[in-house]
Amino acid sequence: MQQVKLYDTTLRDGSQGEGISFSVNDKIRIAKKLDYLGVHYIEGGWPGSNPKDMGFFKEARNIRFKHAEVVGFGSTKRAKMSPAKDTNLKALLRAGTKTVAIFGKSWDLHATGVLGVSLQENLSMINETVEYLKSKKLNVLYDAEHFFDGYCRNRDYALETLRAAVRAGCDAIVLCDTNGGMITSELGTIVRAITAEFGNTELGIHTHNDSGMAVANTVAAVDAGCSMVQGTINGYGERCGNADLCVVIPNLQLKMGRKCLSDAKLKELTEVSHYVSEVANMRHRDGQPFVGRSAFAHKGGVHVNAVMKNPETYEHVKPDVVGNHRRILVSELSGKTSIILKAKEMELDLSKDDPKTRKILKLVQNLESQGYYFEAADGSFELLMKKALKKHKPFFTLEGFNVNIEKRENNTLVSEATIKVKVNRKEEHTVAEGDGPVNALDNALRKALNKFYPTLAKMHLSDFKVRVLDEKAGTAGKVRVLIQSQDERSSWGTVGVSKNIIEASWQALVDSVEYKLLKDKTK
Amino acid sequence: MQQVKLYDTTLRDGSQGEGISFSVNDKIRIAKKLDYLGVHYIEGGWPGSNPKDMGFFKEARNIRFKHAEVVGFGSTKRAKMSPAKDTNLKALLRAGTKTVAIFGKSWDLHATGVLGVSLQENLSMINETVEYLKSKKLNVLYDAEHFFDGYCRNRDYALETLRAAVRAGCDAIVLCDTNGGMITSELGTIVRAITAEFGNTELGIHTHNDSGMAVANTVAAVDAGCSMVQGTINGYGERCGNADLCVVIPNLQLKMGRKCLSDAKLKELTEVSHYVSEVANMRHRDGQPFVGRSAFAHKGGVHVNAVMKNPETYEHVKPDVVGNHRRILVSELSGKTSIILKAKEMELDLSKDDPKTRKILKLVQNLESQGYYFEAADGSFELLMKKALKKHKPFFTLEGFNVNIEKRENNTLVSEATIKVKVNRKEEHTVAEGDGPVNALDNALRKALNKFYPTLAKMHLSDFKVRVLDEKAGTAGKVRVLIQSQDERSSWGTVGVSKNIIEASWQALVDSVEYKLLKDKTK
Repeated sequence: MQQVKLYDTTLRDGSQGEGISFSVNDKIRIAKKLDYLGVHYIEGGWPGSNPKDMGFFKEARNIRFKHAEVVGFGSTKRAKMSPAKDTNLKALLRAGTKTVAIFGKSWDLHATGVLGVSLQENLSMINETVEYLKSKKLNVLYDAEHFFDGYCRNRDYALETLRAAVRAGCDAIVLCDTNGGMITSELGTIVRAITAEFGNTELGIHTHNDSGMAVANTVAAVDAGCSMVQGTINGYGERCGNADLCVVIPNLQLKMGRKCLSDAKLKELTEVSHYVSEVANMRHRDGQPFVGRSAFAHKGGVHVNAVMKNPETYEHVKPDVVGNHRRILVSELSGKTSIILKAKEMELDLSKDDPKTRKILKLVQNLESQGYYFEAADGSFELLMKKALKKHKPFFTLEGFNVNIEKRENNTLVSEATIKVKVNRKEEHTVAEGDGPVNALDNALRKALNKFYPTLAKMHLSDFKVRVLDEKAGTAGKVRVLIQSQDERSSWGTVGVSKNIIEASWQALVDSVEYKLLKDKTK
Repeated sequence: MQQVKLYDTTLRDGSQGEGISFSVNDKIRIAKKLDYLGVHYIEGGWPGSNPKDMGFFKEARNIRFKHAEVVGFGSTKRAKMSPAKDTNLKALLRAGTKTVAIFGKSWDLHATGVLGVSLQENLSMINETVEYLKSKKLNVLYDAEHFFDGYCRNRDYALETLRAAVRAGCDAIVLCDTNGGMITSELGTIVRAITAEFGNTELGIHTHNDSGMAVANTVAAVDAGCSMVQGTINGYGERCGNADLCVVIPNLQLKMGRKCLSDAKLKELTEVSHYVSEVANMRHRDGQPFVGRSAFAHKGGVHVNAVMKNPETYEHVKPDVVGNHRRILVSELSGKTSIILKAKEMELDLSKDDPKTRKILKLVQNLESQGYYFEAADGSFELLMKKALKKHKPFFTLEGFNVNIEKRENNTLVSEATIKVKVNRKEEHTVAEGDGPVNALDNALRKALNKFYPTLAKMHLSDFKVRVLDEKAGTAGKVRVLIQSQDERSSWGTVGVSKNIIEASWQALVDSVEYKLLKDKTK
């Protein structure tokens, strides 16, 4: 199978999506996941435009990625300035990646109307920038911004911009449908023409979804000769988003016979999609092709009957190939294997026929239907398994708590929590204040437990996420709290679900503490 | 411009989507809206399969649609039975529409493997059913279910099924990609072949989105000779949904030069899309091409600057052509221009040199550095600007609140809020319980304000997001709460930031209520 290179820009173009704002830590977590999935390039950010992005490149240098290469993104140099003096390019070099992506203008309107430079000057900017970066021994990908719009309006000039990049020695040209307005058949025809002239250079495709055709356009471009695809996980990106790699990858691999990932990694696609949506704190889209919760859900009576006879009758691919599963009125079938794999990770021995495996699976499915989500809550999941296997004894029991938040006329705000727990039959009743109710609760719990378990002092909560599950109910909907905790050695996630945010936080908080103590005990 | 006929199946195929359940009244409301928009056919349901659907046809007969024709849907007759005795066809005739859509099997696998009939018998079922309905003087559309899958596996047989329908005198053939797995280029090639043989019959296209290509496939089919498109509003439908008419229509009309709607009606598309999502009680998708809230939202600094100079630089079509509008997202990168544009949206007059512009910009930047995030909080931003311009008077003042959450040994949990506010110098002191602390606070606030501002009953909170800003500080970090609210007319976001989640929620809650009241006052 012919290989297609995957270039992920979730961290750069994806972060332009409305409602998305990644911290450096979020970006690192996503980058590790992308590497695990097996993408070839991870565009980390635009160091010249956003100082926050530099933090990512600094941290990323200390990570040994197994498969992926981190890429810095930047624009061509300013007009009439030596590339060596351009602050944007300086920042790009400081980011310290071996591969850089440089975007330049292919559309005459942008050169003259936006940058305010002559068409000739724009060509020099492209040429000199690529040449300069090549002189630094970098792998240079040239992103031809607005290539298709430029080609449709002034074909000769658009081609000249590509030639300027190729003459300077760029390693790949990426054809961009920046405004996302292209129609598939037209885009395919253009890419074919480009392949004819520039076939000796590696060609990539970068599409946006403003026509609702980003995926079809990407696949058509590969069919027409591109061997690199740019996109984002879940299609995050400005306006209507970028090409969704979660949809592009299985189309290319399963329908077009192009190799993107190993078959084993393709099975991780659904999980990766969910993971990134959790980190981005964006709702996962049920109808998302291949990886959505409804992608293989059968509702119509005719469909359900036929699918029971032969799934091929109403399924375009097998759901497990992308790690998804069929959902019908009958209980879900998949999952046993993941339980066994997870058990193995925890050095617990479970077989497929073991009734305990079935019991845990049922428990997990039941909790998931209530809104629990264990993908990002490994700590809670491990506790759940140990409890189910009767290998866990709680470190304390709660007798009750009370949280009070008071706001007075002078605008002062006080949060106070009282808590009563029992440890080894000794009752502890403590009170503590905090910056907020959960913090007060956390403080009161630690105050009660610290003398029994001094290692708790080494642990802290590093992230706290809240998601309303039943959006229609507004503030009365069910809430899922995900807490990420860490000590000096590792990091673990825990989850709680309730209609009450304090109760959900409490569940995740207790799991977090329990997991820490369990870990220390078995160490 | 060549006309394309629009065939909407929101009420039939759309209702197969997960989470969608229309009452008869919902269906009538949507049908009227579709007629208003100007679609040609409204598929109302499958009277033979779903008794609830018959209620719709009964009511629909009393409505005088100006433009659209209501269509009944059904399957070919059962094997070895006279069409006149088939209960499914009887029900279809009782529905009393002038046009009917009949689906039959084009894929040999379905005939033999699902229906359990011989290939020859299947051809007779198609032929006799169409013949019978034609004898009743009906306009008969023949839906070739799974046509593309059948064509790829057993081309000759798939073609035979079409011929059986044509011989019987069907008025149109609709080619269906029922499993939604087709790739655009392949689908286009097949449609072209069908056009060559069946060009004398009207051809329609019906696609699903399992490959993420439903829109591209529909447009390609029209390009290849189809003159009728089937789809649903917002792409509702089984699994990954049907072709989204809200995206198909503008693509055909604005890019392919095919006439679907009058220009005036095209401008209603965004409103119709929102209306149907409200009736369906489904969240409107921000990134939906053409009609989504983010479809013309600009965030990146480079984009905002260029769009100011010339919108064409980052917009594939003009937003107002489909009734949408440009939104400049006020984010970390925003400058004076974004403020001025935002002011223009709000019909406030601000110039670049106005000292007030500078003042607001400083205020925004200061708040953003504290963690406020106005991109998703247009309501809060508008209030902030009006306050800064001294154009806002608060609708109430808070004197204090108290929120208490108690968990007892028996695991019961009670959340109670008391609140004291002043409205027009009248003090209100209320108490309410809730599912959680914020819900209790919301309930207490509404209890206090409802008698002064009865329109608040029309508003509800539709989404609630929480993000910890200083992740390293765990539960003591700063928290940002984003609340999305809506009434029957529009939707707005508000934001609050604090170390205390209750305080942050309170800020967002107050802004949400203030914005609603402000909106009603200036209406």
